[in-house]
Amino acid sequence: MKIDHIGVAVSSLDESARFYKELLGLVEVHREEVLSQKVRVAFLVDPSELGGTAIELLEPTAPEASVAKFIGARGPGLHHLAFAAPLVAPAMDVLRKGGAPPLEAAPREGARGHQICFVHPKHCGGVLIELVGG
Amino acid sequence: MKIDHIGVAVSSLDESARFYKELLGLVEVHREEVLSQKVRVAFLVDPSELGGTAIELLEPTAPEASVAKFIGARGPGLHHLAFAAPLVAPAMDVLRKGGAPPLEAAPREGARGHQICFVHPKHCGGVLIELVGG
Repeated sequence: MKIDHIGVAVSSLDESARFYKELLGLVEVHREEVLSQKVRVAFLVDPSELGGTAIELLEPTAPEASVAKFIGARGPGLHHLAFAAPLVAPAMDVLRKGGAPPLEAAPREGARGHQICFVHPKHCGGVLIELVGG
Repeated sequence: MKIDHIGVAVSSLDESARFYKELLGLVEVHREEVLSQKVRVAFLVDPSELGGTAIELLEPTAPEASVAKFIGARGPGLHHLAFAAPLVAPAMDVLRKGGAPPLEAAPREGARGHQICFVHPKHCGGVLIELVGG
């Protein structure tokens, strides 16, 4: 599975987006508020690779957001690693059978309207893994 | 700059490589010991995207390795984010001028024989950033 994006927990979407744009040459291709996750997100990519791996910046919009708790416990920084799974449900089955059951019983809607699921870091060597549907 | 790879600190290179290969369909394309960093590393990519973003697993080979200290403090997990900079020295200048000075005064040799440098997370919103030369 292709690496779809790297999620980064940030305190300020604007300030972090500026860092990746001005110092590393990325371009912002999408921004939205994901109400179910209580986050505002921005996706940035290298302009020479529009279909390539993106960086998703996540700024919490409420103290009870899981991203807010993450920042409270560990500070801002690398948050999750997302893989593109054209069909999420069968990929979830593979993970379940391999001993890394997703948190969700079935895919749910995430940013950019994609079907997604997450797998707890305890099953993935400390890495929060996301699957993102096509 | 293209996202070259995501570094993941692991306790066992073999066990983690198996996870990414068997459950997420990646293939291992390179493995080496980086003596200067006291780590064994493995690079894995999606087989449909051999030039795409890789995952670098890093297993410390000595307790004084910075990756060993990272694991001791925070547990295994996402460790750094690396961008491909065809010319590392000029990219280091851009970072220096932008308030994110690299730890090194000049590029040094890292894994796969590439010229590299790192920028401390305190300058990058909590993310350890690496530049990787062409």
